[in-house]
Amino acid sequence: MSPRPKKNQQTINLQEAIKDTAWKQIAEYGAPALSLRGLARVLGITAPAIYNYYPDRDALVTALIVDAFTSLGESQKTSIQDLPPGDHTARLTALGLNYREWAMAYPQRYLMIFGTPIPGYHAPEDITVPAATWALQPLIATLQAIFEDGSLRVDRSALMTPDLASMLASWSQFAGGPNVEVLYAALIIWSRVHGLVTMEIGGQMPSFITDPGEVFRREIENIKIQYLNINPRNGKTLY
Amino acid sequence: MSPRPKKNQQTINLQEAIKDTAWKQIAEYGAPALSLRGLARVLGITAPAIYNYYPDRDALVTALIVDAFTSLGESQKTSIQDLPPGDHTARLTALGLNYREWAMAYPQRYLMIFGTPIPGYHAPEDITVPAATWALQPLIATLQAIFEDGSLRVDRSALMTPDLASMLASWSQFAGGPNVEVLYAALIIWSRVHGLVTMEIGGQMPSFITDPGEVFRREIENIKIQYLNINPRNGKTLY
Repeated sequence: MSPRPKKNQQTINLQEAIKDTAWKQIAEYGAPALSLRGLARVLGITAPAIYNYYPDRDALVTALIVDAFTSLGESQKTSIQDLPPGDHTARLTALGLNYREWAMAYPQRYLMIFGTPIPGYHAPEDITVPAATWALQPLIATLQAIFEDGSLRVDRSALMTPDLASMLASWSQFAGGPNVEVLYAALIIWSRVHGLVTMEIGGQMPSFITDPGEVFRREIENIKIQYLNINPRNGKTLY
Repeated sequence: MSPRPKKNQQTINLQEAIKDTAWKQIAEYGAPALSLRGLARVLGITAPAIYNYYPDRDALVTALIVDAFTSLGESQKTSIQDLPPGDHTARLTALGLNYREWAMAYPQRYLMIFGTPIPGYHAPEDITVPAATWALQPLIATLQAIFEDGSLRVDRSALMTPDLASMLASWSQFAGGPNVEVLYAALIIWSRVHGLVTMEIGGQMPSFITDPGEVFRREIENIKIQYLNINPRNGKTLY
């Protein structure tokens, strides 16, 4: 006999089955078409049975968003766990390449958290923001280590306006005190890899770019050149 | 009496009315829910009347995408038309800021061309690619002028792989011969402003960034610092 209580096992299976089926429906019909009644029909269960887990569509969407951010955060964390803490270039490269790999492996999850917002859905920020923050954490921690090492080129940016400095200071306080330029760099590096991945997944790359990975990998190199002061011609650190 | 033939006038009005109504439906229910029958119902016309203009949903979607790219391209072109051709920093700034302004003014158009692809819709590339290319043209032309002036810092990038060089060479041939590093810079600058705007429109900015415009404007300054060799501390060109 299995040591697990059967009922609990079924509960977990049904909750996972609802989410799995939801991802499939999203892939086929788009996230705006998602409906709990439709899912119940496909799963062969009653609508009230699904309401036990998700009282409405928005609750299910929130659960999918949190799962997606968690999956991305785990993937980011795993990508650097075996790399020496002091190998900054290797860690930045791994995080950057991993972002694209994760997006290509899970395009529906990627589009759910970064694509067109679902009309009528309002994310409960107290739930989705911590999940998003957690996904960005490995990049922030890596940049903070580079900064503490004295290797982050923060002097190559335009001066900060007082408004921007104040927003970043609030964020830093919330995030346990990383340098404000570290937070800014994390935001910009994220938006840069994100911009390219969004274009690739959405099919918006110029048609001549038959391998968007080539553009992506060069952009990762250029990000390191700018932030870590690496010689573009030989890949050596200029310090 | 109006000099215009009445029937033609009606034709134009109905076609525009179909598209206007489609944008409203997209805003309310999402692009995947768009249906010609639904539009006919809202407009109080028969389904066959709509098929005169758009034989199927995909034809309408393609028309909306082309309109959106045309609107973006016009907006980009207009943003620099009164600036002196030699004022590179002013022109790059204008193009960058205009991209965000256009997206904020027309979020549905922005999401239609850059958001989550509509399930089941396949863009006819011979129609949508030229429209997209045309929208990017003002940036490419501006960067090419900067390059011909000897002011574009193309030496700060990682070496190009032969594969990337070959893709860019094909694109250059198609685009009438801009330098391959100009095309690459256009693609990267576009992806950088695009990444930030996508995050802002999608509500994916960290919640502490209460004015994403501050981040956007600093990123435009940083792009100019990197590509035009401007001193970050005083905004003066280093040449």
